[in-house]
Amino acid sequence: MTKIPVGILGATGMVGQRLVELLADHPWFEVAHLASTDRSVGRPYREACRWRLPSPTPFSVQNIPVSPLDPALAPGLVFSALPGDVAGPIEEEYAKAGHAVCTNASAHRMDGDVPLLIPEVNSGHTALIHAQRKRRGSGGFIAANANCLTAELVLALKPLSEAFGLRKVHGVTFQAVSGSGYPGVPSWDILGNIIPWIAGEEEKVEIEPLKLLGTLKGDRIEPAALTLSAQCNRVPVRDGHCACVSVGLECAATAEEAMKVLEGFRPSKEVTGLPGTPEAPILLHRDMDRPQPVLDADGGRGMAVSVGRVRPCPIFHVKFFVVGHNTVRGAAGGAIHNAELLAAQGWLGA
Amino acid sequence: MTKIPVGILGATGMVGQRLVELLADHPWFEVAHLASTDRSVGRPYREACRWRLPSPTPFSVQNIPVSPLDPALAPGLVFSALPGDVAGPIEEEYAKAGHAVCTNASAHRMDGDVPLLIPEVNSGHTALIHAQRKRRGSGGFIAANANCLTAELVLALKPLSEAFGLRKVHGVTFQAVSGSGYPGVPSWDILGNIIPWIAGEEEKVEIEPLKLLGTLKGDRIEPAALTLSAQCNRVPVRDGHCACVSVGLECAATAEEAMKVLEGFRPSKEVTGLPGTPEAPILLHRDMDRPQPVLDADGGRGMAVSVGRVRPCPIFHVKFFVVGHNTVRGAAGGAIHNAELLAAQGWLGA
Amino acid sequence: MTKIPVGILGATGMVGQRLVELLADHPWFEVAHLASTDRSVGRPYREACRWRLPSPTPFSVQNIPVSPLDPALAPGLVFSALPGDVAGPIEEEYAKAGHAVCTNASAHRMDGDVPLLIPEVNSGHTALIHAQRKRRGSGGFIAANANCLTAELVLALKPLSEAFGLRKVHGVTFQAVSGSGYPGVPSWDILGNIIPWIAGEEEKVEIEPLKLLGTLKGDRIEPAALTLSAQCNRVPVRDGHCACVSVGLECAATAEEAMKVLEGFRPSKEVTGLPGTPEAPILLHRDMDRPQPVLDADGGRGMAVSVGRVRPCPIFHVKFFVVGHNTVRGAAGGAIHNAELLAAQGWLGA
Amino acid sequence: MTKIPVGILGATGMVGQRLVELLADHPWFEVAHLASTDRSVGRPYREACRWRLPSPTPFSVQNIPVSPLDPALAPGLVFSALPGDVAGPIEEEYAKAGHAVCTNASAHRMDGDVPLLIPEVNSGHTALIHAQRKRRGSGGFIAANANCLTAELVLALKPLSEAFGLRKVHGVTFQAVSGSGYPGVPSWDILGNIIPWIAGEEEKVEIEPLKLLGTLKGDRIEPAALTLSAQCNRVPVRDGHCACVSVGLECAATAEEAMKVLEGFRPSKEVTGLPGTPEAPILLHRDMDRPQPVLDADGGRGMAVSVGRVRPCPIFHVKFFVVGHNTVRGAAGGAIHNAELLAAQGWLGA
Repeated sequence: MTKIPVGILGATGMVGQRLVELLADHPWFEVAHLASTDRSVGRPYREACRWRLPSPTPFSVQNIPVSPLDPALAPGLVFSALPGDVAGPIEEEYAKAGHAVCTNASAHRMDGDVPLLIPEVNSGHTALIHAQRKRRGSGGFIAANANCLTAELVLALKPLSEAFGLRKVHGVTFQAVSGSGYPGVPSWDILGNIIPWIAGEEEKVEIEPLKLLGTLKGDRIEPAALTLSAQCNRVPVRDGHCACVSVGLECAATAEEAMKVLEGFRPSKEVTGLPGTPEAPILLHRDMDRPQPVLDADGGRGMAVSVGRVRPCPIFHVKFFVVGHNTVRGAAGGAIHNAELLAAQGWLGA
Repeated sequence: MTKIPVGILGATGMVGQRLVELLADHPWFEVAHLASTDRSVGRPYREACRWRLPSPTPFSVQNIPVSPLDPALAPGLVFSALPGDVAGPIEEEYAKAGHAVCTNASAHRMDGDVPLLIPEVNSGHTALIHAQRKRRGSGGFIAANANCLTAELVLALKPLSEAFGLRKVHGVTFQAVSGSGYPGVPSWDILGNIIPWIAGEEEKVEIEPLKLLGTLKGDRIEPAALTLSAQCNRVPVRDGHCACVSVGLECAATAEEAMKVLEGFRPSKEVTGLPGTPEAPILLHRDMDRPQPVLDADGGRGMAVSVGRVRPCPIFHVKFFVVGHNTVRGAAGGAIHNAELLAAQGWLGA
Repeated sequence: MTKIPVGILGATGMVGQRLVELLADHPWFEVAHLASTDRSVGRPYREACRWRLPSPTPFSVQNIPVSPLDPALAPGLVFSALPGDVAGPIEEEYAKAGHAVCTNASAHRMDGDVPLLIPEVNSGHTALIHAQRKRRGSGGFIAANANCLTAELVLALKPLSEAFGLRKVHGVTFQAVSGSGYPGVPSWDILGNIIPWIAGEEEKVEIEPLKLLGTLKGDRIEPAALTLSAQCNRVPVRDGHCACVSVGLECAATAEEAMKVLEGFRPSKEVTGLPGTPEAPILLHRDMDRPQPVLDADGGRGMAVSVGRVRPCPIFHVKFFVVGHNTVRGAAGGAIHNAELLAAQGWLGA
Repeated sequence: MTKIPVGILGATGMVGQRLVELLADHPWFEVAHLASTDRSVGRPYREACRWRLPSPTPFSVQNIPVSPLDPALAPGLVFSALPGDVAGPIEEEYAKAGHAVCTNASAHRMDGDVPLLIPEVNSGHTALIHAQRKRRGSGGFIAANANCLTAELVLALKPLSEAFGLRKVHGVTFQAVSGSGYPGVPSWDILGNIIPWIAGEEEKVEIEPLKLLGTLKGDRIEPAALTLSAQCNRVPVRDGHCACVSVGLECAATAEEAMKVLEGFRPSKEVTGLPGTPEAPILLHRDMDRPQPVLDADGGRGMAVSVGRVRPCPIFHVKFFVVGHNTVRGAAGGAIHNAELLAAQGWLGA
């Protein structure tokens, strides 16, 4: 199979680098275009980008010259890792010009006709693309992945939602510094410390799950009838967002029933066939002190979420601890996973 | 005023060292006796103890020889920082022998006639001592301070309880490594990591507040009618326990009303006069990103708790973030504060 | 005694905040003026400055409005905590206008007629001020404190230099993140990591000691005849710079002889009388595992340096480990100490 | 090829776990035996061992029951990750009983007839085994890998030694917490801190390189004529030991000449063929701020060392910064690499 050429917008930042890393050996996609807003334009990627990941810069992209942001130069499929303050209009421009834009930015996540996707959770929401294409009069479209914390939270909630129904979700988060990009959080603020606030995060975590767990009705998503409360905190961890989650269900369930449902969760056949889908999207731990970000963030090559300490909650029904890789499942890996879904469903086609 | 001579049981451990430090310049108490279970007996304290606090070992105790654990050798008032697995029977022995034992250990906290005290919260609970003395037929007694996390949690809850009534409290904690004593948590387990479990902690945090916020009825405490859910986590922070707390009230209150009550909280006149009582036991923050353990754990010389991010909770009424010093307010400082209360109320007397 | 009014240039940054904190209760100086280059001008200091130190913003400065940088508005004595890229010409302007400028910036440190001062080390170098005043034709002058690491290194070297003569000094450093200012080092770069390079640092550490340990000859300093080799590294520590130092001497000395000289070191009577001079400028440790930045950086209220592990070096004569507080002794405290010396010697006078 | 069955002594500790992990997919060796001193004997490995590495416990060993330490039960080749205080006599017993013992413990490293090996450095030293066999009158023998820090230091020094001759080596280290085993360093001691001492470490680093870089003369090693000075420090890093190294050469060399030699270093053909030999044993960095433990410890799957900041030293000839993986190249991986060499040279075989 000839690989599909892809472009990366915002290729030199933290998520851009993860996209480059994860796409290096991708079976379906091939990086053909790297674009950036900054002064790096024109220089080969290996010089333009101060690479900050432990793995070396993939050989195949080292000499690709960094392009300016111009839809005319980009292949049909682009990943957007653009900064939040500029992503919105630029992505719109690419979609208008006919590109499929898989974005990690939050600008369009809640747009009525933009699918907000986690393949294991709501692969049918891609149907929104019809409305989007009609609106723009072009074949282009935007598909978004969720906020990093939301993605792992909703993946863990999905089987509980299916089996027991969700009424209330109370989440307190422990978020890694890689989630703030680069340079991100100053070391003086976080070394040996906890910061009880992340700008804009709680708002996203309280609203995005309603769309992700919502129901496609014609050309719109009816939000899930669910109340969320989020308290988001930054912790001195490099990679791996964690959350303490308490869940109120429609039909009461024991901790053991919840565990069975969580470890038994398997995605649809369509989604199982995607390269980015982990064998088991949810890794259940029964040891008291697991999961932990250092030990478990890389589970399923960073695409699985790890859940443990599932137990009864004196106030809600069950509570648990969840860990996921915030720049893989929660960002770059999630965007690629979405593109795989779009390819499998035929949205990228000629 | 002649100072009251005091002893410290378990003087060489983490909490024992904090007791020594905090008692060094105490206006009412004077360290006269240092006892330990370990091989250090007989050697001067400065050699027996591997001092691990940033402040230097107080000059006044350096040459006190470490005693064995023997009530006959100890002054009438002793502080117990004994390890949890041995504290119970040893403390009982001291009380039988007529000593007043202010303990930081958990063994007797929930005993029916042992007062579990936070002076600003329940100074009247000392009346339980009558029953205790009667039971033992000695003038001795045990008075306990709460679990480190519980102490700061309940101090923050007290004014809300008084003003609005408490129904439900949901707490997720971020606990410093000093809370596990020394050697405590191995560095491999916690460097850049989160551990979602602390042995025995959630049980204490879910039960102790019921007694602390309970009502004295004759010679027993009627527990508060309150449901708690706790999820306790270890974080790579040196000192300062934090918690994200959501509170369901009997009478609904806005965040602003809760803040007014929190910052207006002042203890009774009796408690205000104790040396360990901070000017304001609750320091309210209105900045978005405060309190933080590094910046705020030492507030009120470690005896105040700092509360911030008070805001509405979509599920409960209000939620907030609290920080307190776990080895000062939550351990050594709390035990000393209790002894001050006992002295002021005349329980230590001839 | 009426206190001397002082100004702080660059009052909102990391070192500016330390200056404000350390001057809050100063017996000789009183903060009367806070100036800044940034958008904070005009607002009261408590709003203009995002305070990042654990101690609260001193009450006395909270309402001082932040001034623009204008010599006409400033008192006669100013402390400069200006950023390195702008400090040079601005400080020159204040000196020309007649101000005494005690600077922490590096711009003028190596100027021939600018004294680079550590009171315990080279208090006589203030004589350079005569030449400086003559050059400018004003009573104003600049006096600099050394690079943060250099200051503690040279303080530890001074007694060895006096007693045995120094030939070679080989230093490898472990530098805290507060040394890079704010926002400084991104947390992604330093959490659980070591960065083997600090821009411009090794150059300063290899050259400044020659001037500090040099000899006043007429109106210039003859540099010490000494070779230094420095390797500077950033470590995940909040406050407290450390160094492993090996020293080649003119007259061989044993480790014990070196220890005697280090712990016996006392400054001149003139310097002993300054408020910022610690009782013992060098705190010698004989325990194997001391000093450590967390335990020892605050020694002598941050103005002493702690030296330990003094032992023979198979290559040089002796080697040791030194810890000092980089934003107190190594920056704000050092600048204030210099101002105290200048006041005591009469340079600030009418 | 049938794989060679191997045993691991001390299989449940930190280095034991790394051995298990690295041997899981080894092309030549197969884990057939897991032995331990502790209470875990008799239970399947997955239960006996509290696994602490991010990778999951290899499936192939999960059900192997943990054996007691008994040569009669072990295969011919055993790896020893026994604790330092018991390793010596136990290893001796296995060697007497005819086993080949590849040990990570220090007990026998400096024994006259025990080869201390780094395959790329001194593969010919295995000839010492003849003398050892003769002494014991058995086919068994002990072969040791070097101290974790020594291993990476000597690998970096080897090409410089060959090209220019070594006279003096001055090293200051930054050592990760995994080097202290488990539980190892208490978190209270190292979080945000530096500890300037590691028991017994400097002695090893100053003596072992003399044997590693020594010359085989008949049945003994003539130590290299070289003076070393080491200062060993613990830092809050998980994995990856670093060192600032200054080198005095016999024939002066420029930094550029040293870099050429370092990046051109390739082992002998015999050693190149071993599975554990990385393509380039030394990875040279020319960026100012590299290598770093977080980014570079895993270089060459943890078997390469990374060297950077090669530059002139004002006192010695050149200085540089080196990073290596302390539990792979410096421990488990080194022991396996040695066993590969022994297999390739025919020492293991019938």
